[in-house]
Amino acid sequence: MKIVSEQRESDTRQNIVDVAERLFSQIGFQKTTVADIARELRMSPANVYRFFSAKAEINEAVARRLLSQMEKDVDAVVGGREPAPAKLRAAIASLEKANAQRFVANRKLHELLETAFNESWPIVQQHSSALNASLSAIVGEGVRVGEFRIDDCDLAAILVRSACVRFCHPRLMVECAQEPEPTLDQMVDFCLVSLRGGGADA
Amino acid sequence: MKIVSEQRESDTRQNIVDVAERLFSQIGFQKTTVADIARELRMSPANVYRFFSAKAEINEAVARRLLSQMEKDVDAVVGGREPAPAKLRAAIASLEKANAQRFVANRKLHELLETAFNESWPIVQQHSSALNASLSAIVGEGVRVGEFRIDDCDLAAILVRSACVRFCHPRLMVECAQEPEPTLDQMVDFCLVSLRGGGADA
Repeated sequence: MKIVSEQRESDTRQNIVDVAERLFSQIGFQKTTVADIARELRMSPANVYRFFSAKAEINEAVARRLLSQMEKDVDAVVGGREPAPAKLRAAIASLEKANAQRFVANRKLHELLETAFNESWPIVQQHSSALNASLSAIVGEGVRVGEFRIDDCDLAAILVRSACVRFCHPRLMVECAQEPEPTLDQMVDFCLVSLRGGGADA
Repeated sequence: MKIVSEQRESDTRQNIVDVAERLFSQIGFQKTTVADIARELRMSPANVYRFFSAKAEINEAVARRLLSQMEKDVDAVVGGREPAPAKLRAAIASLEKANAQRFVANRKLHELLETAFNESWPIVQQHSSALNASLSAIVGEGVRVGEFRIDDCDLAAILVRSACVRFCHPRLMVECAQEPEPTLDQMVDFCLVSLRGGGADA
């Protein structure tokens, strides 16, 4: 019976996040209240508060899910069969694409992520760590086949992500839209030269 | 007489910007009104409007001056006698230092620049172009002595500035403060490997 009950709890939590995401994308996360979410679910606000102690936690849960999806897309790239340089390019491109599509198709959800980054919510740190790990895995693959000459794959991953931040950061992406260069390909090429050229000269 | 009169006009304009900068740093640019500025200068608001057609223009003039000072600091680096790699590091470091010092010593002026970047004021584009030109000059020096292997110095400058944006962007700098890596030296080293290693392999 305990397992069934836990499953129900998890389902309810999931439903709250689903409804919140839908309302956020319709009227924006700032205008959505816990009462709005409860009403959609035909439950009392008090019941919502059994799962999330504050509205801010619901905001974070929705943002976390959006960021998790981006991490999964990058992990799909990591699990592919392309050589490391192509994986690196595809990983950065998948982050840019997710941000650009959300910005065009769902500006209000995009604003939720902009706020998360502006205010450095803990989930953003979590997202950065997840991406660093994925990029580090790609760099490591490149090192193993002799394509990259790098001693510290974790640091290299952080450097690549920092160098490409204008493509991966929801607010900066918008801000940089009026600066046509560097393109993603130019920036990734620049990073690849560095990853290939490290070692004795570095 | 015309020259004297033009000089006076220029002085008055300068005085308005001086007073505005002081008030902005005390109470913030959003709370400072044209009437406040006029009162400090013992002139009428109508007289201020002879020089600036809207408060937004005064905001821009103050922000422009802050950004110009940063550009001058970078130009001083360009005019120095160090080798190109050291100049590149010093240029990025001077931008980081100016941002960090302003953030600590004068948060309200820092907020003016954050807003300028957030809202992509035209002066920010002008600032980017000025910095690109300075960095391109440094890259060009490195190419001439055979230190860098780069075909397009302007593009290389844009790539370096983009890669180092977390140190040069007033908002991103604050946001990244909780992520200790990459350090400025790590990022500049990464760029230098790329600048040195370009060419046939690239």
